[in-house]
Order: sequence, then structure tokens, then C-alpha cells
Amino acid sequence: MKVLAILYEGGQAAAEEPRLLGTVQNQLGLRSYLEGLGHEFIVSSSKEGPDSDFQKHIVDAEVLITTPFHPGYLTRDLVEKAKNLKLCITAGVGSDHIDLNAAVDHKIQVLEVSGSNVVSVAEHVVMSILLLVRNFVPAHEMIERGDWQVSQIARNAFDLENKVVGTIGAGRIGYRVLQRLVPFDCKELLYFDYTPLPAEAQKAVGARRVEDLREFVSQCDVVTVNCPLHEGTRGLVNAELLKHFKRGAWLVNTARGAICDKDAVAEALASGQLSGYAGDVWNVQPAPKDHVWRTAKNPLGGGNGMVPHYSGTTLDAQARYASGVRSILANYFGDQQQDPANVIVGLGEYVTKAYGQR
Amino acid sequence: MKVLAILYEGGQAAAEEPRLLGTVQNQLGLRSYLEGLGHEFIVSSSKEGPDSDFQKHIVDAEVLITTPFHPGYLTRDLVEKAKNLKLCITAGVGSDHIDLNAAVDHKIQVLEVSGSNVVSVAEHVVMSILLLVRNFVPAHEMIERGDWQVSQIARNAFDLENKVVGTIGAGRIGYRVLQRLVPFDCKELLYFDYTPLPAEAQKAVGARRVEDLREFVSQCDVVTVNCPLHEGTRGLVNAELLKHFKRGAWLVNTARGAICDKDAVAEALASGQLSGYAGDVWNVQPAPKDHVWRTAKNPLGGGNGMVPHYSGTTLDAQARYASGVRSILANYFGDQQQDPANVIVGLGEYVTKAYGQR
Repeated sequence: MKVLAILYEGGQAAAEEPRLLGTVQNQLGLRSYLEGLGHEFIVSSSKEGPDSDFQKHIVDAEVLITTPFHPGYLTRDLVEKAKNLKLCITAGVGSDHIDLNAAVDHKIQVLEVSGSNVVSVAEHVVMSILLLVRNFVPAHEMIERGDWQVSQIARNAFDLENKVVGTIGAGRIGYRVLQRLVPFDCKELLYFDYTPLPAEAQKAVGARRVEDLREFVSQCDVVTVNCPLHEGTRGLVNAELLKHFKRGAWLVNTARGAICDKDAVAEALASGQLSGYAGDVWNVQPAPKDHVWRTAKNPLGGGNGMVPHYSGTTLDAQARYASGVRSILANYFGDQQQDPANVIVGLGEYVTKAYGQR
Repeated sequence: MKVLAILYEGGQAAAEEPRLLGTVQNQLGLRSYLEGLGHEFIVSSSKEGPDSDFQKHIVDAEVLITTPFHPGYLTRDLVEKAKNLKLCITAGVGSDHIDLNAAVDHKIQVLEVSGSNVVSVAEHVVMSILLLVRNFVPAHEMIERGDWQVSQIARNAFDLENKVVGTIGAGRIGYRVLQRLVPFDCKELLYFDYTPLPAEAQKAVGARRVEDLREFVSQCDVVTVNCPLHEGTRGLVNAELLKHFKRGAWLVNTARGAICDKDAVAEALASGQLSGYAGDVWNVQPAPKDHVWRTAKNPLGGGNGMVPHYSGTTLDAQARYASGVRSILANYFGDQQQDPANVIVGLGEYVTKAYGQR
């Protein structure tokens, strides 16, 4: 059978660092395994347009492996052309690059390696909150350019202690963020989610659920987005919602770029309605050179903590998701049951509630 | 009486932001209080050389107020000229800019605002650990310059989870760092200190004491320095000790610059013996334009997380230390007992053990 993997380019880095498993060069460490079983294994980073390897090979691949960091966007149109496709595996967490409704209709299973990088992302969130609140980027840039004006940095530097932090989504990542924030003595930890946390889990982090989203954001000094992208969350943080934020709040989004309205966020930052925006996810990836989030700043010239999409692809995470992809493949080849935590779409039905069912 | 305060320049920032209390412009909010009591209050940032306001006014000042961010260095020579000096107050934590032995000899009391910014600094430490381990700075710079190569960043990005983190010094700041690291599921938390933590405090953070410094650093993936600067800690992290670090370890120092040997750290970073160095303290402040820590990088071009000395002078911290300085002054004027936690040098004797007694 044909297995198609769309991965990111590793270049010289991958040649020098074999732990960069998620690259075209290192192929999730799967080549000898798959070829040993007699399968054809196509690996490429070429994913855009009708002449891409992605579109060329999807027509007869049985298994598609992609990552959220360099996603092959599997639209309904492509699903309909993919006559042999039975299984999509996301090497990481987040399968919004796949038209999940189309996958349900065509009985294509969609699996993630659910535990593989939730800690990686949660750590990135806490780092991003701290570096926005504490005004790190302008401070580091001041040192790099040979300057030293403490007051220019301190005037917009705060402690996380005694601030209100809220997460949109208290699932596998959002909950881990809350856990990591507990000893920072925040004024309050809040969460917004379609379902309440189990009482014990909620008590363990001392968080309070706010059911109305506007009311939720209006209470937060820091808002972090930790929900999947689906029809119900696309553009959720838009100009209208941003008006309800506390003036000067900080926003961190490592979930998916399209959950936040690109231009509305940039405008809120420019006006000072937001003091900072950080994260690693973009509405298009790779982000174009002129993407406004690359250069958006607050009125004091800081508040930008953006990075490319890599929080879930640390070398530690790559080891975990490469191993997880292999387990999913082994289960599939051997007709074994998959770990239910990994299944987004089963045979013709949603298994998780996280992506919003039809 | 004459009260002399050496503070940092706030410029336009201080004019626009009244919460920048620690500046020459905003004068810790003390002017009307001190003048109301009939005292003379001299405030300046001029602190270097015999013609500086510092050296000019220290000869007849009774009280000296300084900050660690822009320290007036009170040498023995100056102590001997300061015939009226009775009280030195550090607006913040860390009084190494004062020759404490000379203060003991001349019965000059030295007080700090001990609780004012220990949380601020501990937060900065955790932020710095995360941003080094996760390779944040090169990732952000990539976005700023319009690039996108995930593999270039991911090849040197790791999770904090399952790493060994150790603090040199488990006092007011070091212990708060350990507390904040607990939910990150590090492989182990270690500490090196002249005295063991109380059993209950040690248990609460699950840390293990290592008594030999070489053995301690050889076990750590991340080392953070959280001890005062004194005769016993100056140059503690030098070329010899760095050889005992794990290859590729990360080092964070927000304590005092002179605890780490400037050139040895830069060389260890250049060779890859260290993967990263971050912090906000420098052997001379302001750091000269050509200070090697401004530009030192690891072999992959990253690993520098340096900022000017501001971690303890967030706006939240400024409110606390301004208020703390006022309390210390009020106690002094009213001949009331000082809070023992704030006293470094009492009348002719060390009160704390932290600075190493003679």
C-alpha cells in the first residue's frame, strides 16, 4: 500500500541532527519499517497546488501522515479525489487541516498522537505569558543593539503574580497550562469551555469556570487560547470580542492562528487595547513574509512574542510523536484497536467532541 | 538631615508613567514625605567618579538610598569619607554594591526591602529557563526578519519536562523558583546551599540537596544562580567549574553578574559547553556597549537571553519597594525597630548570614 507523508524541510539541520524526526530528511524514522513491510513510502514537503507531491500522491495513497507544523490541507475536494484513502494520521495534535466532515462522509479515519506534545505546548504557553507580561522581547533587543535604559523596559513590565489568567479551552493543553500556573500565585485562574472540568480536576488547580465568553475575557489580564479550530471557533477572537477584553490585556494563542482574527488582533495591539500577542500558530503556514503578526507592536514598540509553528515539535516531542505514529500504523496494519484517546474520526463518525460535531 | 538617593534615569518614560517610582523623576514617591518632615532630599543618577553627585553628597548624607538596577558603589574609601552616614537602604534586594565589612566597622546599618521583588526575580528565572530550553530568541528573530524554517529552530528546542534543574542558593528567590518549577514535571530539582532547607520546605518542592558544587553542576541540565554576591561567591561559576557542567547545559543568572566569570561564560557558550545563558545582571551596570554578554552565542547562533537589569523593577515591584523604603525611613526617624527580615547589617554587626560573615 502507499503511505504518503507531508513533512517539513529539515535541510542541513536535519542532516546534522538525527533527532529532527519530523522532517522530510528523517522521515519520522519510518522508512525501513514501512519498506520492510513491503509498503511504498512517499515523503515530501511539496504541498501547495495541483502539481504538488501532496496532490499528486493523495489520489492513490491509503495512509496520509501530516504534521500541524507544515500541514497538507486535505479539503473536501481532495478527499473526493483520494479514492484509496482510509487513514489520516496527524504527527502531533490538531487535525483542523483535514476537512473532518468530509472524512466522516468518506469513512476515512483521522487519528492524532494525542499525548505527544501537549506538555510541549503548555510550556510554550506559560513561557509566552511570562515574556509578554514581563516585557522580555524589547529588553533583549535593547541589549542586542548596545543600549541600556531600564525605565524604557520597566514602564511596561509587570509580574504575573496577582494577575487574572484565563484559558479558552481547558482540555489536554489548557488544563496543563492551569496546572503550571498554580504556584505563580495569580489573583485567579479562569476557564471557558463547553463542558465543566470534573470537580476534582477543577479543585486541583483552583480554577473557576465562566460560562459567558464576553464576561470571561472582561475579567482576564491574560487570555490564552487552547481549543481546537473548527467551525465554532474560527474567528472566535475577533474585533467584537476584543472590545470586551480588559484594556491592556495580553493574549497568547498556540492553538490555531485562525481562531484569532489576524487584522483585529494587530489593530488591538496597535491601539493598546492589547499589550501583547504571542504564539506560534498562523492562519497560513508558512506565514507569508508580509504577515501583519510578524511586525505588529503595541504603542510602546513591544508586545510581540510570535515565533514559527514549533512549540509542539521540540526534539522531545518529535521522539514522542514519531513513536506514536508508528504505533498507530502498527495497529492499523495488524487490525488492532487504536488507543481511543488518539481517535478524532472513527469509521464514519466523530469520536471526540472537541472539534464540534455536526 | 540629608537623604541621598541614587536612582536610574526615567526620562520621558517616567514623565508618562508615574508608576515608574524607582526613577530620578519619580523619586520613590518620597519627596513631599521627606520635605514635610524638614529633611533635605537629594536625588540623582550621577554616580561614577569624584565629580558625581553620589560622591559629592555622600560626605554629609545621613541616609543613602540606592537600587541594584543602577547601583551607587559604596566602597570602603567612600564609607570613610561619609562622616554622617548612618543608614543605607537598598530599594530592592541585594546590597553587594555596599562594602558591608566597612559598614560594620563604621556602624552604618544596611537594610533591604527583602520581600519587595523576590517573586519578580523568581518569575524572571522561570521565564529565562523556558526561553533558553525552548529556543525562543532565534525563533522570534526568524519571524521578525521574515523567515520560516521550523527545523532550524526545532533542532535546538527542548521541553523542560524531564530535565534536571538545580539552583545555586535556595533562599528567598531560589526557593520561589523551585516552587514554580514543581508542576513542570522536571526529572529532578536540586539545590546547592550552605545550609539545608527545613525538612518541610524541602519536601514541599521535592528537591534534593547536593553538597559538592562540582557534583551538583554535573547533574544539572539547567543551573540557575540565586545567591548573593560576596567574597565567597565572586567568580564562583568560572572556567574550572564550567568544565564540570553537563555538555550543552543552560545557565540562568539573575543574582549578580560577577558571580559568573564573564569571559568563561562567553567561551563556554561559543564552544557549546553551554547551550544558553540568560539573565539580567552584569558585572558592571550599565553594561558597556561592547560587553561580551550582549553578543555571545552558541554554535547554532542562539542561546542568548540577556536583558538589562530590570527583573526586580517591574511596576509591581516598584510599588512594593517604594512602600518598603518609606517604612524603613519611618522606623528610622521614629526610632522604631526595623523588620528583622530587612536587616543586612545592624549596628556594627552582620544580622543575616547570606552575605558570608567575616
